[in-house]
Amino acid sequence: MTSLAPQPTGDAASAPALSPVEFRTEPDRYRHWRLAADGQIATLTMDVDEHGGLAGPDNYELKLNSYDLGVDIELYDAVQRLRFEYPQVRVVIVTSGNDKAFCAGANIRMLAGSEHGQKVNFCKFTNETRNGMEDAARNSGQAYLAAVNGTASGGGYELALACDYIMLIDDRSSAVSLPELPLLGVLPGTGGLTRLVDKRHVRRDLADYVCTRPEGVTGRKAVTWGLVDEAVPRAQWADRVAERARELAAASDRPAAAAGIELTPLAKTRTDSSIDYTWVSASLDRAAGVAAITVRGPDTDAPATMDEAAGQGAAFWSLALTRELDDLILDLRTNEPALGTWLLRTHGDPARVLGYDELVTGSDHWLAREIRLYLARTLKRLDVTSRSLIALIEPGSCFAGSLLELALAADRSYQLDGVFEDEDPDADPAAVLLTDVNAGALPMGNGLSRLQCRFYGDDAALQRALDSKGKPLLAADAAAAGLVTFAPDDIDWADEIRLAIEERASFSPDALTGMEANIRFAGPESMETKIFGRLTAWQNWIFNRPNAAGPEGALRRFGTGQRAEFDRKRV
Amino acid sequence: MTSLAPQPTGDAASAPALSPVEFRTEPDRYRHWRLAADGQIATLTMDVDEHGGLAGPDNYELKLNSYDLGVDIELYDAVQRLRFEYPQVRVVIVTSGNDKAFCAGANIRMLAGSEHGQKVNFCKFTNETRNGMEDAARNSGQAYLAAVNGTASGGGYELALACDYIMLIDDRSSAVSLPELPLLGVLPGTGGLTRLVDKRHVRRDLADYVCTRPEGVTGRKAVTWGLVDEAVPRAQWADRVAERARELAAASDRPAAAAGIELTPLAKTRTDSSIDYTWVSASLDRAAGVAAITVRGPDTDAPATMDEAAGQGAAFWSLALTRELDDLILDLRTNEPALGTWLLRTHGDPARVLGYDELVTGSDHWLAREIRLYLARTLKRLDVTSRSLIALIEPGSCFAGSLLELALAADRSYQLDGVFEDEDPDADPAAVLLTDVNAGALPMGNGLSRLQCRFYGDDAALQRALDSKGKPLLAADAAAAGLVTFAPDDIDWADEIRLAIEERASFSPDALTGMEANIRFAGPESMETKIFGRLTAWQNWIFNRPNAAGPEGALRRFGTGQRAEFDRKRV
Repeated sequence: MTSLAPQPTGDAASAPALSPVEFRTEPDRYRHWRLAADGQIATLTMDVDEHGGLAGPDNYELKLNSYDLGVDIELYDAVQRLRFEYPQVRVVIVTSGNDKAFCAGANIRMLAGSEHGQKVNFCKFTNETRNGMEDAARNSGQAYLAAVNGTASGGGYELALACDYIMLIDDRSSAVSLPELPLLGVLPGTGGLTRLVDKRHVRRDLADYVCTRPEGVTGRKAVTWGLVDEAVPRAQWADRVAERARELAAASDRPAAAAGIELTPLAKTRTDSSIDYTWVSASLDRAAGVAAITVRGPDTDAPATMDEAAGQGAAFWSLALTRELDDLILDLRTNEPALGTWLLRTHGDPARVLGYDELVTGSDHWLAREIRLYLARTLKRLDVTSRSLIALIEPGSCFAGSLLELALAADRSYQLDGVFEDEDPDADPAAVLLTDVNAGALPMGNGLSRLQCRFYGDDAALQRALDSKGKPLLAADAAAAGLVTFAPDDIDWADEIRLAIEERASFSPDALTGMEANIRFAGPESMETKIFGRLTAWQNWIFNRPNAAGPEGALRRFGTGQRAEFDRKRV
Repeated sequence: MTSLAPQPTGDAASAPALSPVEFRTEPDRYRHWRLAADGQIATLTMDVDEHGGLAGPDNYELKLNSYDLGVDIELYDAVQRLRFEYPQVRVVIVTSGNDKAFCAGANIRMLAGSEHGQKVNFCKFTNETRNGMEDAARNSGQAYLAAVNGTASGGGYELALACDYIMLIDDRSSAVSLPELPLLGVLPGTGGLTRLVDKRHVRRDLADYVCTRPEGVTGRKAVTWGLVDEAVPRAQWADRVAERARELAAASDRPAAAAGIELTPLAKTRTDSSIDYTWVSASLDRAAGVAAITVRGPDTDAPATMDEAAGQGAAFWSLALTRELDDLILDLRTNEPALGTWLLRTHGDPARVLGYDELVTGSDHWLAREIRLYLARTLKRLDVTSRSLIALIEPGSCFAGSLLELALAADRSYQLDGVFEDEDPDADPAAVLLTDVNAGALPMGNGLSRLQCRFYGDDAALQRALDSKGKPLLAADAAAAGLVTFAPDDIDWADEIRLAIEERASFSPDALTGMEANIRFAGPESMETKIFGRLTAWQNWIFNRPNAAGPEGALRRFGTGQRAEFDRKRV
């Protein structure tokens, strides 16, 4: 079995002991993508190094621009840099540098050899990256144009589906296809099924046909059925792509002459028991199955203007904090599956957090928008993280405004009523502080603020909470306002937290994941939440079924020359 | 292993050879429920016969009003009869006749001993019944009042959650609880998680707490958290329940003095190769994995008025057809899991179908409403059926109005262009015919008409289809209007259908189920679709995981005295 990540326990004892997967990278180190910007247009060229798989070339070769987690980590990095380092870029052309294919999707040998948890985590990250591309167009004036200059199959076509406009070269052989079902016995699970019908409005019966036809659809028919926006003969290809890019660029509100913010390497120290950045740290308790995360507030007042903030570059607290939190979430999710509970603490001066919040959410500066959207995406990662999230609100904390979202994203929150008498009897008791930032600036995937989702269907309770805006609430008041779950005092605190953690560790990890995935998302669904809820949940089920992952299943048999053998009973 | 249904293939070779599960029953034969009506108020008393389990008392005992499929079949029958046989009933009180519990939910030994497919099918049916109870209040003026006169745990509380008003006896011991996660390592999957947050607006962090606390919540706290509507001391119980029932009844528009329609026993003949009713029949081809279903249109013109129709009782075509189709869907889903493809044909006079449609959908007669709503629920069953549905539209068919919904519910449809030259060269070519009935009278679970869902996001295409209302469309026109998928002629027909069927049989049944569950539901979600999409998909995944269903999993270990052993990795 191939292993993408170290396996502290379980059935992959024979897997090579790999280092933790790192999500930090930069264009100079890319092995699979080229990023080039020319004024308002950037081009992201996929040219996967066959021998550059994350698990090493002995395990699988990334032929035909197929990808693994390592390839997608670079894509994610590029997507992020395009937002921050290239404020002038209005259109990103995604195309292939491989002369045989646009992209063949996730590498099948990689998938077949991955453990269930690795497959699921890989799909989650790839989905988040593609949602981020759509977020760029919808909220940030940076559209993605898929220039499909060869066959796009499976995840390759799903990558195109995540773009805002799809051009397919019309050369009689280049097709778009979703062969997952007929060839592999799994779903087009990287948003494919959902985007076909919900985004591209492909009729369900045509979608059915497309998803069962491994050779896919070419040229005019792909246009007629809505699978692509345009089919272009090779002779006109380059001109037409450039023309469409210019047209898409014209609709953008990105700044013409702003200087980008370089996303300098994150300072990160990782040991077996801790992960530390400048503003974020996590202590890893393997015996208890807990990652104790602390987010620190700014240690200076906010700069007076966004221009001044931009001058601080990647060191600007709001941006630095978000990057670190983002990296930590990805790291823990991928490398520490046995740490099932994350404790979320903050530490710092709430007033300073609000100062930074005001600057970032109260300005129409392009960088302010980018930071706010990045924080929103990062908090959405928390919402779909398959870990129990418990917020601990203690004296010295700064759960205010944007950082209060950490508590609102948590499955439960505990706020100390009073102070720790033995530790610091003179401390100010912990408070939470709601602001306008909590009322819509950082929406969940379903389009609601975490506050709206929390009080879904109970407008009176929502209004009561909103009435507290700007007022620090001590434990009893915060509990009465429904902003925290429990408010134990010093005498009960340690026991209650310990019991909650032990209890969590005693439950079935799968059942917790399923429960959290349901009750975190009260109310409406969006394409994004359907991808993580409906589509992903079905895909995960299929990944677990012998018909896909068993020794005679389609995923394992693919490429062996042997046909899969199916249990024909429908479930 | 306990088996609920015959297993034509698979790993239950040692299971007793049971007869097919029958969904037809009647109050005189109930073993687990008592139905009593008194004017506007009916009482449905659950009093499960411990030794009356479907698989026999040697396999499990239905203690504490726990239930299996057999118990739920009786509940479904009662819910249906309350709609048709008791038009005057405005409120149904659901209560327990067991002196130890209200209801302990699905029987755990039954679940632990069931195959995966049996568990999933069982949950689907129980969910449909509970959705049907909500449909009664929302659309038909018949509210359900849960009179929880003892502890309601797991599926027992979920049964109460499906009611419109929940009263809990306040005796210091009776609780509502969802112990599935802590005790069994599975979810409250019969709508529980979804209804907690989406219907009862229980705050997500409190829902988290409730779902991890096996002992549940009693009395006042259950009211404060929104888990029940009212907690009533024993001394006032009977009076208060009666009072609330009267209040709920006052808001209803059910007729005061209508005579009910007796749901007489369905005439059904079942052999190994066919299932036949009066208007519906299915031929079962086990080699091909196909059930070929034919629905016959009425053989007389519609009666002139609904009163006349009511005089025909259960023989009235619209009602008879719906009952037969409903029973067939349930039978095939439960007893024939290896028949993965259902062919849907109709036969009859389209004009007569429209005549019945007009009577049923154009009248405010209580019976007309009931039949329309029943057909809507039955078509919703098709939408969530894990079989490939292929509509075959041939000369002599009557895919018009309500029966056109069968083709619109299908994953694909084939309409013959022309006639079968060798068979009947003089026949009229097949036509489809759209009417107002297709524009909203029979909504899907997501609230859209099948037509709206089909053309989701493409208003022009929807309008083009609607413009054809009332006009019979031959194959080419129907295909151009997007109402059918393919329109082969006589020369290609047989081969194309054969290939489609063979292809379907060659694919992974699980992947087909997952694909269909996604692309059938373009657009918005509702509580109902979230229960079948998000909640059920996660539950199915968990049912497949060793942490629940493995030999050391929580579901298998429950009651053995041994603790479950979990793989602690989060996925």
